[in-house]
Amino acid sequence: MTASAHQDIKVLAFDIFGTVVDWHGSIAREVEAMGLAVDGDQFALAWRAGYVPAMQRVMSGELGWTLIDDLHRMILDSILADFNISSLDEEQKRHLNKVWHRLAPWPDSVAGLHRLKSAFTICTLSNGNIGLLSNMAKNAGLPWDCILSAEVFRKYKPDPATYLGVSQVFDVKPEQVMLVAAHQSDLDAARACGLKTAYIERPLEHGSKQPKDVSADPRNTFHARSLIELADLLDCQ
Amino acid sequence: MTASAHQDIKVLAFDIFGTVVDWHGSIAREVEAMGLAVDGDQFALAWRAGYVPAMQRVMSGELGWTLIDDLHRMILDSILADFNISSLDEEQKRHLNKVWHRLAPWPDSVAGLHRLKSAFTICTLSNGNIGLLSNMAKNAGLPWDCILSAEVFRKYKPDPATYLGVSQVFDVKPEQVMLVAAHQSDLDAARACGLKTAYIERPLEHGSKQPKDVSADPRNTFHARSLIELADLLDCQ
Repeated sequence: MTASAHQDIKVLAFDIFGTVVDWHGSIAREVEAMGLAVDGDQFALAWRAGYVPAMQRVMSGELGWTLIDDLHRMILDSILADFNISSLDEEQKRHLNKVWHRLAPWPDSVAGLHRLKSAFTICTLSNGNIGLLSNMAKNAGLPWDCILSAEVFRKYKPDPATYLGVSQVFDVKPEQVMLVAAHQSDLDAARACGLKTAYIERPLEHGSKQPKDVSADPRNTFHARSLIELADLLDCQ
Repeated sequence: MTASAHQDIKVLAFDIFGTVVDWHGSIAREVEAMGLAVDGDQFALAWRAGYVPAMQRVMSGELGWTLIDDLHRMILDSILADFNISSLDEEQKRHLNKVWHRLAPWPDSVAGLHRLKSAFTICTLSNGNIGLLSNMAKNAGLPWDCILSAEVFRKYKPDPATYLGVSQVFDVKPEQVMLVAAHQSDLDAARACGLKTAYIERPLEHGSKQPKDVSADPRNTFHARSLIELADLLDCQ
């Protein structure tokens, strides 16, 4: 956290779901606005809970390479059955599945990213597919210099190929890249590859009923409550 | 060119070198500013002339998958010898090679792209690598929604995988994508994949001594003198 800690950083790579955008609140609101007879909070948590197991089926080789849009749809079909929702037609399911393209940014995200962009190259590094991340950026006004995704590297995080892929794309050393994320496991994997790490507190990522532990881990290069505070710590105007 | 021709277009994919940025003028100016005893016009043309043969070595399998940055460096080393330039050290060669990251936009490009972005998703579709295109966009102020590259698809244009890759990334039909380019061969290949096409006149792409034929081909969906005129034709405010 010294003044010199960031002098050689060139690229900030951002985790997206939970770090930059509020998946829980966005999905809960949209499901409730559709008038479905479900608890939006529980529906959002169930959808997200299917995400890691679905990716593991791809990483184990049980499924071939699959875009997150398609994994989201598999999980959606499963939880619609679990929640006993049979009222949606195919077009409505397709639209609902793309709620992940319409996730709302946290209140500090857009302003923070604009400040960080003035001093660094800012890119996504998400397991979300390129189309999803592009549509989200256009909808939410996220000013990325570049959209990088598991889809580019054909590996999901936390595969080292994703973190090291960022440094290769920009022809910089791993320590010149900093991963910005609200998840310690993601940051741990990036640190193991030589990247710098910034933890962002998102205590309401899982909703107000399930507050997250956001305590600091001293192994991270930076710890901030928001992207605006990160811009402050990195001396961005 | 009827009013309905563009009603269903969702994504504009742009060729970059020559279409959005002026490689010839940018390279000629930079080489001359370095004080090298060469004709900047001839040096720029020689560098660009090595590009297609170098890509063909990759597409034929003679070379493995290679980023354009690395192909540019192979060609640079070759033409430095041809022009009898031996005064550059490794650092100077590395810097000169990245002139492709610093190419200047045509005067209408930035304003035209901003208008087009208001109504369409705008992305690159270039054989340039992602890092090159990202650095160029940041340097020149090109407001892409997404940077797509041969590097994403592991095929160079005119491989169909690149044109169809755009429609797959954005989950739209090929005819909902329009390639915007200053090269008829690129547009021909896109049209063969079902994309719409817009030709942009860049008569000085090869410098004022080698004016290009920019006559209209009626098979293109649109023909414009600039990206601003294209925005007019597409009714973008």
